[in-house]
Order: sequence, then C-alpha cells, then structure tokens
Amino acid sequence: MSLTVVGSIAFDSVRTPFGERERMLGGAAVHFSLAASFFTEVRPVGPVGNDFGAAEFEVLERRGVIVDDIERVEGGQSFFWAGHYDYDLNVAHTDDTQLNVFADFDPKLSPASEAADILFLANIQPDLQHRVRARCGAARFTALDSMNLWIETAKDSLLAAIAEVECVILNDAEIRQLTGESNLARAARAVMDLGPRAVVAKQGEYGAALFTREGFFALPGFPLEDVRDPTGAGDSFAGGFLGSLDSNEGELDEASLRRAMGYGTVLASFNVEEFGTERVSRLTREEIDERFEALRAMTQFEPLPAA
Amino acid sequence: MSLTVVGSIAFDSVRTPFGERERMLGGAAVHFSLAASFFTEVRPVGPVGNDFGAAEFEVLERRGVIVDDIERVEGGQSFFWAGHYDYDLNVAHTDDTQLNVFADFDPKLSPASEAADILFLANIQPDLQHRVRARCGAARFTALDSMNLWIETAKDSLLAAIAEVECVILNDAEIRQLTGESNLARAARAVMDLGPRAVVAKQGEYGAALFTREGFFALPGFPLEDVRDPTGAGDSFAGGFLGSLDSNEGELDEASLRRAMGYGTVLASFNVEEFGTERVSRLTREEIDERFEALRAMTQFEPLPAA
Repeated sequence: MSLTVVGSIAFDSVRTPFGERERMLGGAAVHFSLAASFFTEVRPVGPVGNDFGAAEFEVLERRGVIVDDIERVEGGQSFFWAGHYDYDLNVAHTDDTQLNVFADFDPKLSPASEAADILFLANIQPDLQHRVRARCGAARFTALDSMNLWIETAKDSLLAAIAEVECVILNDAEIRQLTGESNLARAARAVMDLGPRAVVAKQGEYGAALFTREGFFALPGFPLEDVRDPTGAGDSFAGGFLGSLDSNEGELDEASLRRAMGYGTVLASFNVEEFGTERVSRLTREEIDERFEALRAMTQFEPLPAA
Repeated sequence: MSLTVVGSIAFDSVRTPFGERERMLGGAAVHFSLAASFFTEVRPVGPVGNDFGAAEFEVLERRGVIVDDIERVEGGQSFFWAGHYDYDLNVAHTDDTQLNVFADFDPKLSPASEAADILFLANIQPDLQHRVRARCGAARFTALDSMNLWIETAKDSLLAAIAEVECVILNDAEIRQLTGESNLARAARAVMDLGPRAVVAKQGEYGAALFTREGFFALPGFPLEDVRDPTGAGDSFAGGFLGSLDSNEGELDEASLRRAMGYGTVLASFNVEEFGTERVSRLTREEIDERFEALRAMTQFEPLPAA
C-alpha cells in the first residue's frame, strides 16, 4: 500500500460569491494528497519555491503525507494561480497564472516514490506523465488527469501517455474534446480503446460517471446547501478514489472501483464546503465514512429506514 | 388507478445531427401519455385541429390511451413546433412556434378525467394549471411542469399553482430561476416551502434528482451510445414517473418515488433513442423492466454478478 502523485504544489488566490482568500495552500498534488491521506501512505512529487514554508509543510505532515519528494528550488517561487467563480461554481475564471518553478519541472522520484503500488499523474505536460509512468514499473494501477491545453497543444504525447495507464480521470467536456465524440458513452469507449480499463468522467455538481469494459456506474454530487470554493474538487475526488483503491488489498475489481467512486465523491464534497484545504485538513475518517453511508443511502432504490 | 394529463398535443418538425423529421406526432401530453400507458390508464386533455387525423389517434389508441378528452377544434390547426439541436443535445433551438388551437385552450375535463387519482399539469399557462387542479379534487398526487416563459411573465400565478400540487418537475435551471437561488439543494427546499412534498430536478443527460422532506435521491441518465432526438424526453420522464406512481396501490412513500424516478429515467432513455414517438410507440413492458433492472445494477455499489 503506497501511493505517489506527481503534480502541482501551489498557492491559490480565490474569490467566490461566498468569500475570498489570498495565497492559500493549493495545487493538484496537495488536494490529492490530503484526500488520499485518509486511506493510505501518500508521496507527493513536485517543486516549490522559497515561499513554501514550514506552515505549508505542516498542513501536509499533520495528515501523515510524506513530503520527502517535494523539491525545494532555491531562489524560486512556487506555482501561483488566481481565479474567481461567479454563481455558476462549475466555471472557473482564471485571473493570473504564474508557473514559476513549475515551468521547468523535471520530476525526481525517490526509490520509495518509484515503488508506489498506485500512481496518480495529475495534470502536467503529458511527456512528463509518460516518463514518470515508465519509472514506476511496480504500479499496479495508474491514473492520469489532463486539461484542454494539452489536448490542443500536445495531443500525440497525451495519447501516448494514456496508452500506458489503467484509468483516465477527466471532465466530461475534456473526454469529448479528446476523442472528438459528442456522445459521452462513445467517447469513453474510444478512450478505453487506447488502453485504459476505466474512464472516470467528472461532471462538476452532477457528480461523476465510471465507464469500464464491464459496465457503467454513476454517482451524483453529494447534495450540499453550502458550497464555498470548488477549487481542488477534481483532485480531491482523485485522491479519495485512488486512496480508497490503494487501501484495497485484493483485486481492483468493479466493486473496488465503485466504492472508490463513492470515496472520491465524498472527499470532493468536503473539499468544496470551505476554501482551499480548510475543510479537508481538519476532516476525520469517521466523517468520511458517515457521508459515504449517506451517499449510499441516497442512491439506493430502497431507502433505508429512518434512523 | 387512473391518470389525467393536461397539455399540448402537437406536430413537431425536428432536425438533429442524426436526421430530421417533418410534422411528427408530438407535444407534452402525447409523450407523457405514451410513456405512462405502460403502467396505467391515461387520459390526455388538450386541443387539436383538423390536421390531427386517424393516424395520430391510432398511435395513442394502440397503446390503450383514452382519447375521449382530446378536443377537436373545427377549422383549427394543431399546435406546431419546429426546432433543431446541434451536437449538444441538451440545448433545443426553436425555429418556429405556432400555437394555433392551443392559443385559446380552455381545458374541458370529462367526469372521468376529473376523477383521476393522479394528475399531471404539463407545461401550460399556470392559471389554467391552477383551475384544472381545483377541478380534480380526488387526485391524491398532482405534479406540475412549467418553463422559463411563465417564470418570467406569470410568476405569481405559477407560485399559486405550485402551492396546490404535491410535486414539481422542472429542469434544474428552471428551479434556480424560479427561486433565485443558485444552489440546487437550497432552491429545491425553497420550492418545498411553497407546498410540494417533492421536487424533481431534470438534468438532461446527467439524469434527474429527487428532493423530498425525507431525503435526496438521484439517478444518472441511462448511458446510451445512440441519442437521436431529445424532444419529449422530459415529458416521457414525467409519464414513466407518474405512471409508475399510479400503478402503486399503496402509500406513495419514498420508496415509491424512487422507483418512479427509475421508470421515468427508463422511459426518457427510450424516447431519445429515435425521433418523436417512434421508439416508445413500439416499446414493450418487458424492455422497460429489463432496462430498469440494468439501471438499478448501474447505481449499486456492489455490482451484480455477470449474467
């Protein structure tokens, strides 16, 4: 049981109709690691600058995240993203992106990171994803995220990276764009034809759908009356999803994948309740399991008797 | 067990990326009635013109729909809608609307229609919905649909109509617009505060969510590789939903509502596979139940053993 994630470690400035924050701890590898930390041992791999200090490391270390492979680039600044959301929280508006140390990111994996059972290639340049995948030869399950930028500018590289992973986790619009197929079921099949055995379509507040060769499974987003900041929801989903898979000692079968979808949904739902990592960093496993059972009850035809 | 629906009976000309049809049988009351006909006795109430002939009546009668309350307006023309869809089948583009006999529609209900156990007020002017509701005093469950036009031009009337029904069935965007609340869970609660015990949020290809005072339930759209014409999907959903409820002799409890959501989802999925009423008019109850069981299997955490 061990999980490695390669991706951004960042500061985010975010404004939503429900508040704003300056330079919060963020980035795909951070949201992913915190979510996965409730299930397994996680090693984030990514670069930070001098501005990344003890306070930031402490948020990760308090959750048991192993920070050995966070690379401190002397004299550099960490990746920075500024954005805002209007009332439609499904749409992020980017106000500023400063790649900083992330621009020249060349992932350096320790032997422990390379030995991971499960690997998550967060949204980074697909040639890097491909190279990291090749180094982690022991991984029994690798998942990959990406974005429209790479579909548009590095599609062949992305297709080559996808061919080497077991699972693709993308927004449904990205799956359509990648395959040029407007029907999601057909688009997911086209992705599986490239190699992966599973495709997870993230659908924002509508939840997420899992396509495999064996079947189809879907979960709604957990219904919340207070959503404050959706930043990191997708990576929290991936962290819950792959963390749950890694905690599974048996075969990664259809039932494991469905349970993992549930934990992904639950972690994403906690993530969006407050800004940045605020909610997940003080979450408990008991709260996670309680919400998982609530989600199960919400998706069964036979409702549970009232408690 | 009897179900009355008041709404449009129409001819539709539709173009999608997958084909086109001229002057197909359509309209809310037609799609609803055909879907509900697999579960119970249905009486559509609505006006048609001289252009509505034996061929159209036959489609309904072959499915056992009771056409006595379809009002033939001599010298008039039936409601006509023309529209098209691009690759995003969630968005209908209207090219032409001719209300014709529907412009002066004043619902005339026979004693049998008035005695319905379940009533569906399809999308018509809300004062008419209110008046029909008042006449059907025996109905144990009434559901109402509406549209952005009435939210914008007759909101007070619509709120008064909603106060008299058990269930509102709207697109999620309409629920948000009606309540001025961007969060769907809050918006659904605001609708229930007006009176209804249940709110169904239709979410296009993402499926549908059920909000009640007791809980939350959601189903994905049934995954289809071939969707040809989404026209009538919402009314087919409502027909499956209320038809299933009406076939339920016991209390209309949470379990009945959830099962009804399943049948609504299944009927909508058949509807969109072909143009207009083509698919549903030759559907069988066996096909419906088979897809219902497939949908159940797709939404359980524990997948069924392979058949």
